[in-house]
Amino acid sequence: VTGPRIALDAFGTDARPDPEIEAAVRIASSGARIELVGDEARLRERVAALVDPAAATIELIHAGDEIAMDESPARAVRAKPDSSLCVAMDRLRSGHAQALVSAGNSGAILVASLLRLGRIKGIDRPAIVTGLPQIGAGIGAGQDRKRPHTVLLDAGANVECTVLNLVQFAVLGATWARLWHDIERPRVAVLSNGHEAGKGTALTRGAHALLAKHVGERGPAAMFDFVGNVEPTSLFDHVCDVVVTDGWTGNVVLKLAEGAMAAWPRMLLAAIAARQQDDAQGAAAITAAIDPALHDLAHQFDPDAHGGAPLLGVDGAVIICHGASGPEALYSALLMARRLAERGLIEAIGRAVRDHRELFELARAHR
Amino acid sequence: VTGPRIALDAFGTDARPDPEIEAAVRIASSGARIELVGDEARLRERVAALVDPAAATIELIHAGDEIAMDESPARAVRAKPDSSLCVAMDRLRSGHAQALVSAGNSGAILVASLLRLGRIKGIDRPAIVTGLPQIGAGIGAGQDRKRPHTVLLDAGANVECTVLNLVQFAVLGATWARLWHDIERPRVAVLSNGHEAGKGTALTRGAHALLAKHVGERGPAAMFDFVGNVEPTSLFDHVCDVVVTDGWTGNVVLKLAEGAMAAWPRMLLAAIAARQQDDAQGAAAITAAIDPALHDLAHQFDPDAHGGAPLLGVDGAVIICHGASGPEALYSALLMARRLAERGLIEAIGRAVRDHRELFELARAHR
Repeated sequence: VTGPRIALDAFGTDARPDPEIEAAVRIASSGARIELVGDEARLRERVAALVDPAAATIELIHAGDEIAMDESPARAVRAKPDSSLCVAMDRLRSGHAQALVSAGNSGAILVASLLRLGRIKGIDRPAIVTGLPQIGAGIGAGQDRKRPHTVLLDAGANVECTVLNLVQFAVLGATWARLWHDIERPRVAVLSNGHEAGKGTALTRGAHALLAKHVGERGPAAMFDFVGNVEPTSLFDHVCDVVVTDGWTGNVVLKLAEGAMAAWPRMLLAAIAARQQDDAQGAAAITAAIDPALHDLAHQFDPDAHGGAPLLGVDGAVIICHGASGPEALYSALLMARRLAERGLIEAIGRAVRDHRELFELARAHR
Repeated sequence: VTGPRIALDAFGTDARPDPEIEAAVRIASSGARIELVGDEARLRERVAALVDPAAATIELIHAGDEIAMDESPARAVRAKPDSSLCVAMDRLRSGHAQALVSAGNSGAILVASLLRLGRIKGIDRPAIVTGLPQIGAGIGAGQDRKRPHTVLLDAGANVECTVLNLVQFAVLGATWARLWHDIERPRVAVLSNGHEAGKGTALTRGAHALLAKHVGERGPAAMFDFVGNVEPTSLFDHVCDVVVTDGWTGNVVLKLAEGAMAAWPRMLLAAIAARQQDDAQGAAAITAAIDPALHDLAHQFDPDAHGGAPLLGVDGAVIICHGASGPEALYSALLMARRLAERGLIEAIGRAVRDHRELFELARAHR
């Protein structure tokens, strides 16, 4: 067995540790090397009962403590060095593991990453990356690398951002789109409330001005194109591959998209019922006919079905999953983690930072 | 003919002045008094050809100039006192008209309102109000007063806001929900990215703290209830009647909701086609069966179909319409304007401000 080792926090999800164990066993049986981190006594028996010993590439790493979802991130990370999250983070820092997956307290994952891994040299703030499904993407796994997605960052790591942060997010997002979605020259945009450069806030105008001047249609490293502002109205039209925004706005976008996508089918069914109010049978027939497609869409939009969101900019491949993740989502996240380690995410970001050093200096001077 | 007079900027929409004339004639023929403001020579002949003279309650008010959509709002309002917008605003200020409707440059409407009407005493910043359709609202006009809507403000007047602004928006929004939607004790919430009081930004935490302490479940004037934070995920679930946020976030929410609602049906049709790829006839039959309901929903979500968005906090009843508005949207806005004038919007806001003077002072002191 070769390939990278992945540290999996076994006590992250709401249903900890069963979904984690199931996902670990599934990916291990395909030959991946997993470090399952958590209370060894609780894990050993369950894993032994599940794994075909011949295929076992799961190593148990003991961690006697856990961090709960409602704990204060900074306090918990400092107070609980023996938590499954912190021990997993240490495995990554020490080089025993080459990537990490956790579905725990996302604030704590952020803090532990910053404290134990640190940032990649040249990056001031890490960002959480997510993907918005696009019209024309067809139906299937939302994080399917080959389907059109618009990469959105920051999805929630930093509620307040500077122009420098947004410019760095552009480089991080472009690196991600190249590495994960195989887009050679991603089209990068700034989220704003109008196409014109002057629209938006001081933050969006500043980021727009710097990216337009110093990247434009052929940036210094020829790594991505800057295509200007994109309005929220167009976020599902695939007019760009990467959109940068502050973590507050990104989080609002992500959660509103989730809410809208969940509300829409219920509104449609109500509209069908209203149309067919004298023909309940007719309404039931129409509803039954579209039911499979509605399920396909619900799956496509289900954030829990598509693995995790990478935290880019920290000095290690870290993937954050939703606390409600099931084995399927964790398995996707583990596949993503393996691929990122194999393709050298951290090295790719390091190169991109070096190639854009001058841009970052200009952004740092921006007022 | 009695009732309030409404000033309608005849040169606001993209297709100016035809949609304005059509809407004015329609509401005038039902007895409303309209002042149609714009180039009299251009308006006179078209109006004369359309209106039954016996029913004519349209008065033409001459304004020799226009403000274009792409003009700088502040500059245009100062440079063009004879523009249709500024003249209409003067009719409102002088008391000749009791409400105003314009589909012109929304920045210019905001500036002209501030410069010519001023703010209602006690209100620091006006806000644009919009309504988000809710699950369970049934199908119909989105701005139908009696259907459940969540009132969102600020939808774009102020990209940067203070805690004081948000607290005032809560009072303005509650007044609006009472007056327009006939909700006696509206449930008011702060938009944030988590239910807990500590979630969000310094702005949301500050507004939450003040509203929780001084309004809570029975505010000083017993005019509304504060129900805490609402997450973007729940914005379509009717968990509150009014949601307050800064104008940047509100504008992003509004435009993203619009984009998602437009993208969803296209994604559903793609999903149906993918499911039925060996049965094009079957796919066509399903598509045809849901087509009427899709149309109903599209109409429900079409921002241009539902009249305008009131600008609350300025000393006059001002309604802003989308530049792409047709006669139907303008007609709805005129109906809204008439009702607001009849029900005494400005007086109602004045009372609400007096009833919450102490809360506003606390908010003003908040750091």
